[in-house]
This record gives sequence, C-alpha cells and structure tokens, in this order.
Amino acid sequence: MSDTAVTAALIVIGNEILSGRTKDVNVAYLARQLTALGIQLAEVRMVRDEEGAIIAAVNTLRASHNYVFTTGGIGPTHDDITSEAVARAFNLPYRIHPEAKRILEDFYRDTGRELNEARMRMAHTPEGATLIQNPVSRAPGFRVENVHVLAGIPAVMRAMFESVAPTLKGGRTVKSREIAVLLGEGDVAARLEGLQERYPTLEIGSYPFVRDGNFGTTLVLRGTDEDEIARAADELSTILRELGGEPETPPAPPAHIA
Amino acid sequence: MSDTAVTAALIVIGNEILSGRTKDVNVAYLARQLTALGIQLAEVRMVRDEEGAIIAAVNTLRASHNYVFTTGGIGPTHDDITSEAVARAFNLPYRIHPEAKRILEDFYRDTGRELNEARMRMAHTPEGATLIQNPVSRAPGFRVENVHVLAGIPAVMRAMFESVAPTLKGGRTVKSREIAVLLGEGDVAARLEGLQERYPTLEIGSYPFVRDGNFGTTLVLRGTDEDEIARAADELSTILRELGGEPETPPAPPAHIA
Repeated sequence: MSDTAVTAALIVIGNEILSGRTKDVNVAYLARQLTALGIQLAEVRMVRDEEGAIIAAVNTLRASHNYVFTTGGIGPTHDDITSEAVARAFNLPYRIHPEAKRILEDFYRDTGRELNEARMRMAHTPEGATLIQNPVSRAPGFRVENVHVLAGIPAVMRAMFESVAPTLKGGRTVKSREIAVLLGEGDVAARLEGLQERYPTLEIGSYPFVRDGNFGTTLVLRGTDEDEIARAADELSTILRELGGEPETPPAPPAHIA
Repeated sequence: MSDTAVTAALIVIGNEILSGRTKDVNVAYLARQLTALGIQLAEVRMVRDEEGAIIAAVNTLRASHNYVFTTGGIGPTHDDITSEAVARAFNLPYRIHPEAKRILEDFYRDTGRELNEARMRMAHTPEGATLIQNPVSRAPGFRVENVHVLAGIPAVMRAMFESVAPTLKGGRTVKSREIAVLLGEGDVAARLEGLQERYPTLEIGSYPFVRDGNFGTTLVLRGTDEDEIARAADELSTILRELGGEPETPPAPPAHIA
C-alpha cells in the first residue's frame, strides 16, 4: 500500500515539547487530517530549536516525501528560528516578504500595538516563499516548494492547515474498519497473520486493550478498496467466532491504548 | 548547555500513531522523566511498522545519543516487528531468550492460557540482550547496548521505564523557572534577547498564551545552576515591570498552548 502512497512528513520544532513542558497535540491532528486527504503521514521528527537539527530534518524529509510540514518556532522571539533555518535548508536569502509585512502592518495598526523589530521577524521568509494565511493571529506561515511552515500553537496551526489543505493532492483515500473481540492478541495472532497473507494490499493492525479485567484486541483493517476491506472483515469475523470470541463493531477501546 | 548534556532519543513505532488512530502519550511521559534524571531528550522520531524505517532510525540515533528508547511493536502479532528490526540493526541473531521464555511459561501457566507460537514471539530478542522487566503484563522489553526496547501500551511502557531508570546515568539536572506576564511575545522579545545574551548558559524560552481575551507570554528559564536561574529571573521580573507588565509566578497557561 505504501509504495504508491502520497506521503508526508512532519517536523515538530520546540524545546518545550522535548522537555515535557508542553504536550504536543499537533501530530494527532495532522495525522487524522492527512489520512482523510489520502496522504500517508509516514514519519514525524521532533527536534529542538537548533538550526542544524532543523536543517537536517527539512532536507532529509523533503527529498523523500511529497509533503513536509513543520510546526513551531515562527514567533517573534530569539528562540523562533524555524523560518531562517528553512531558508538555509533551501539556500535561499532570508528577507522581508512584502505581503507578510503589509499583513502585520494592518494588524498592528488595527489593534493599536506596535509593529516593532521583534514582530517584524514574523514578516521574514525565505525569498520567494508563498504565504499561508493565518486567520487567528494574522502572522502568516509560508510554503517553499513542498515544505509548509506552520505555527506551533494548535489553534493557529489548524487554521493554517485548513488554508493549505485545498492545495494538497492526496492519493486514494484510506478507509478503515475496526473489529474488537474479547480475546488476547496472542489468541488471534496466528490466524491474523494468515489473513494478512491473503490480503496483502490491506494493512491489518492489532491493538490490545483491557476491559473490566478482561484482555481484548482491536483489529484494524486499512486499505483503499472498500469491497476488499468488507470481504476481509467478514473472514475476520468468522475467524474470531471460530476462536470462541464474539466480534464487536464498532468497538470502543480507550484511545490511549496502543 | 546541550554540548555537554547527556542526551537521549526516542523512536515511537506504530502505524496507529501515524494514522491518527491512537494518540501518543509516551513522548510527554518520557520527556518529563528523562529531564528529571538530567538526560536531555534531544530528538523523537515516529516511524511506521516498517523494518527499514526502524533500522535506519535505530542506527542513526544510537550513534549520536547516550541513550535510545523505542516504544511499540513488541507484541505477539505479525505487525510487531520491532525486536527483529533491532536485531538486524545490530547485526545480531534473533533468538529465543531463555529467561524471557521462562517468564512467559510461568505467566501463561499461572493464567491458564496457552503459550502458543505467536506468544513465543515475545520471548525472542537479539542475542545477548538484557531483559527489561514488565511487572504489568510480564512479556519483557530488552536492552542492547544503549538501545532500550519498551512496549507501546502506556501503562506497560511506564512500568518498563521505571525498572530501567535506576540504570541510567544523567548529567546535571536541569532546573526551570517560569514567569508569566500579560504582555505579547513581541513586546518582550527584544529585552528577552538581551537577557539571553547575558545568560548564554541558560535556555530562555517564550510561549504565548491567551487569557480572557488578553495576550500573555510565559517565559521559561532553564539551566543547571539554580543561582544563575534566580539571578536571571530577578532581572527578567525587573524587565517585565519596566515594560508595563506584572510578573506572575507560578503562571498557569493551558498546557496545550505552545
């Protein structure tokens, strides 16, 4: 499935994530949004606010994926170094973007605050970048080639992603179907492997859960062909009954149980 | 600060994380635990259940960090390929570990369930691996050199990490102090940069928040020398008052605001 997939990588930038001060919530959001668009999130890297780390991640990932997204590090303070690092990754001059400057001028005039030198950092992009609109707090993100530079604040990141989403070209949308059963993973594993072999284009995942002290397993069938998923789901239900379990669908395991 | 730091990297393994089905909660936990031990979590990679991706991440990161942790992919089903991939990364045979086998035999005998071939997958490790105890569900993790292979289920991962923690040697513990102020990031940025220049061994972070419709900023001072942090915090409080703000400590911005 992944050989022909349209893929994306995400770079989460910020010391606060890696120190544990701030819990990232952007990975889960982007994972779901990209999946819905038929784009497979193939890899995530979380790096510190360090130029070398950002440049290395950007250059490695933009060469291997259709799309790259970054979150974080585009504010007005000294630790916001993402934009300049992306400019260096592309070997582009880091300049004031005239449209970004106008947006900030309008915003700070309207709100009666000062567009000082620090805030003007947010008007800088790699030369020739395309702006990404920010309806929440105005200071824009930007795109250079396949790299989309978004804010780290979740509400702002989401608004920016929504303005980018229509420009992304996904592949076939991946559908999924989940079946839960009160059997241990080890009880279903062998038969599941056989099923996976008969349906090589599907991705069959198995995730344990505990309910009222009983071991259970959620089986996830993912693929682009709904008929095939339905056929595999039927076979799977038969298998689970043969193993003495009662297939439940839709299941409701706690979301934090991997 | 990071030049002499003891560093770690984390590899989160699992399609379910990257598809958005499952929200990772292990990064935040390990980030906090490692920080408390004086170990800097320098990088996180989230990869799919694909051998090549796992091997590449393991080999890149174990060469550049004191410690590597992996989470996920060590269960009994066909998509649990982490242990074998780690064996390949180290060019080690992938074999039954006698002690792991005994642990599983005892567990399944006690619980009256079958130790079948699928469950025996969980007794396999790279040859010579040191087991990591799992008091929750018994099937152990393991360590090869500086790479620690942990479960993905949060409760199990935490129990495994707790049994590993006493073996980890951290550097000087990083302390932090937070000060919040109802000023925009752009209002404090210039003076903050000056402060950072006067305290080059501290890491000074700036994170915006919104409270009752007002823009605010949380400033975080991090470093290993508490006296230095205290001096910088005093200077920062003076700066914030000069800018017309009232420093608040401890602040309470919502945790999800980066």
